[in-house]
Amino acid sequence: MRIILCGFGVVGQNFAKLLLSRSEDLYAKHGLKPRIVGVFDSTGSAASSAGLDLNRLLEMKKKYGSIKKYHNKEKDANGLEMISGLEAEVLIETTTSNYKDAEPGMSHIVNAMKNGLHVITVNKGPLALAFPSLFELATYNQVLLRFSGTVGGGTPILDYAKNSLRGERIVSFEGILNGTTNYILTNMANGMTFKAALADAKKKGYVEADPSLDIDGFDAAAKLVILANWIMDMKVTIKDIERKGISSVTTADVKKAASRKCAVKLIASCDRKLVVAPKEILLDDPLCVNGTLNAITFNSEHSGQQTIIGRGAGGMETASSILRDLLDIKQEISRN
Amino acid sequence: MRIILCGFGVVGQNFAKLLLSRSEDLYAKHGLKPRIVGVFDSTGSAASSAGLDLNRLLEMKKKYGSIKKYHNKEKDANGLEMISGLEAEVLIETTTSNYKDAEPGMSHIVNAMKNGLHVITVNKGPLALAFPSLFELATYNQVLLRFSGTVGGGTPILDYAKNSLRGERIVSFEGILNGTTNYILTNMANGMTFKAALADAKKKGYVEADPSLDIDGFDAAAKLVILANWIMDMKVTIKDIERKGISSVTTADVKKAASRKCAVKLIASCDRKLVVAPKEILLDDPLCVNGTLNAITFNSEHSGQQTIIGRGAGGMETASSILRDLLDIKQEISRN
Repeated sequence: MRIILCGFGVVGQNFAKLLLSRSEDLYAKHGLKPRIVGVFDSTGSAASSAGLDLNRLLEMKKKYGSIKKYHNKEKDANGLEMISGLEAEVLIETTTSNYKDAEPGMSHIVNAMKNGLHVITVNKGPLALAFPSLFELATYNQVLLRFSGTVGGGTPILDYAKNSLRGERIVSFEGILNGTTNYILTNMANGMTFKAALADAKKKGYVEADPSLDIDGFDAAAKLVILANWIMDMKVTIKDIERKGISSVTTADVKKAASRKCAVKLIASCDRKLVVAPKEILLDDPLCVNGTLNAITFNSEHSGQQTIIGRGAGGMETASSILRDLLDIKQEISRN
Repeated sequence: MRIILCGFGVVGQNFAKLLLSRSEDLYAKHGLKPRIVGVFDSTGSAASSAGLDLNRLLEMKKKYGSIKKYHNKEKDANGLEMISGLEAEVLIETTTSNYKDAEPGMSHIVNAMKNGLHVITVNKGPLALAFPSLFELATYNQVLLRFSGTVGGGTPILDYAKNSLRGERIVSFEGILNGTTNYILTNMANGMTFKAALADAKKKGYVEADPSLDIDGFDAAAKLVILANWIMDMKVTIKDIERKGISSVTTADVKKAASRKCAVKLIASCDRKLVVAPKEILLDDPLCVNGTLNAITFNSEHSGQQTIIGRGAGGMETASSILRDLLDIKQEISRN
């Protein structure tokens, strides 16, 4: 399977490492032989229709900070040119999420689908802004669009709800979908002020370059859009989410919650309305997890409440979700 | 799809109710038209090759305590005769688990597979005693053997580990797999003695007719056998489990744990050795759930720890897991 990889940051590099370490096993167990034939990021590009040497690619990125050096004679291609020019079956989109126009990811995905490529995205921006229309485009072009890594990182929440619970009806759900705000609120429960807790989270590298994406609930709202579309068959975008962040949560709020055996968490919920907002939940509710953990509780018609807890992000976790999507695409294709 | 149902207790009756309430939806969404053509339990049997009238069946059971009255002229058939005589595609086994010889469930399952029937069992006995050989028999007879309801009730733990985590390696796992002992230990953490907590659990109807199955860890051990075989590809039976129950756990043990911010739980673990035993776990570990809840944590190679929490048992939950297996079998058959 020939792959074009957009973005070669933490996730892209971890994905390359994962392919290197798992290649034998992937072929033996799943008959999957992935080849990255093109890769580009903001620093440059590299391509080879026979498949790039991933060891060399990782080495060049590490040594020079750019993949452009992969070729002895630089022949830099623009991302969109690569997408329309290179023969491939799958595009993997790992550039940064943005909730204004979702670029450059949006153009990568739309062009790839128009060219008949299946798409795996871990970039939430395009889905948050245009989930329903992107899925229409995928159907129209008869390609698959997969996005396991966008919610729950390595924890397969989307797959669980869609597949493991088939034959069951999910009535509503609520979750802690953003690890950074959970880390900040956990610190506040332990006595820190919002300001100090945010500074600590920044120091640990948990906060996005634009802190508003976490703090003001954009990241959680984007994930809620994806869940609502995928699991509940709603046709919504980020504009349909009632969103409130955590910057107004005070130490007093957190203390008052504690006196009621509760904790304040940024909860994304789908129960008729779609809401992201700080909310008190009981300390012994399975959903009440601490640190950077994510958790989600599904209320199902016949099987009661079910909670899944896992690490929300991390380069290797997200890379492993891409691999899961790739196996899924392989399986779907071979079925038809 | 024609079904023979063994056992018409809480699970069997709930399954019948579920089929009644979901029939339109099952046909529309999944193309599934299940017909129960035969059912038997310790009180009698009923059969109709055109499919039994489930409303009447439930009514007779409720009114007379026996399904024998379904036919105006009683024509009682023995279970094994029905399995070999009636034309059907699937056998659903819901009789009581026993860990001595696993009968009568074992004979039902073995005979059904020899007759070319696919099998869904929520009875753990046969799997606990003979998982590897039952799977060999299924393969030999080219039939499917499914058992979602045996672990986690309505919470699809087995499916999650096998399917949602495909492409990932599970390194080890540990879980609270028995709701009754968890309820007793939660009561003890709240100050009750073991004796009082057991009496309370009995009053609530949480304890098996033979309390040893819960208290001495047989139920948890049986589930551990199933998980180890299915998820870790181990070929083991209940004899391979190191098993210790909770009857020796004292109020002092529970208090000592609390002073260390821990709780005593009956933990089933798979990490080289297969063990069921009381163990202290941290109160803020996602695994540390209370009441009758079940929980399991998978340690995966690339996606870290993932915990699933849900209600362990209940007639409707288990019935819904049977329906999931039925959909799975339908899908597998139509694929070939």
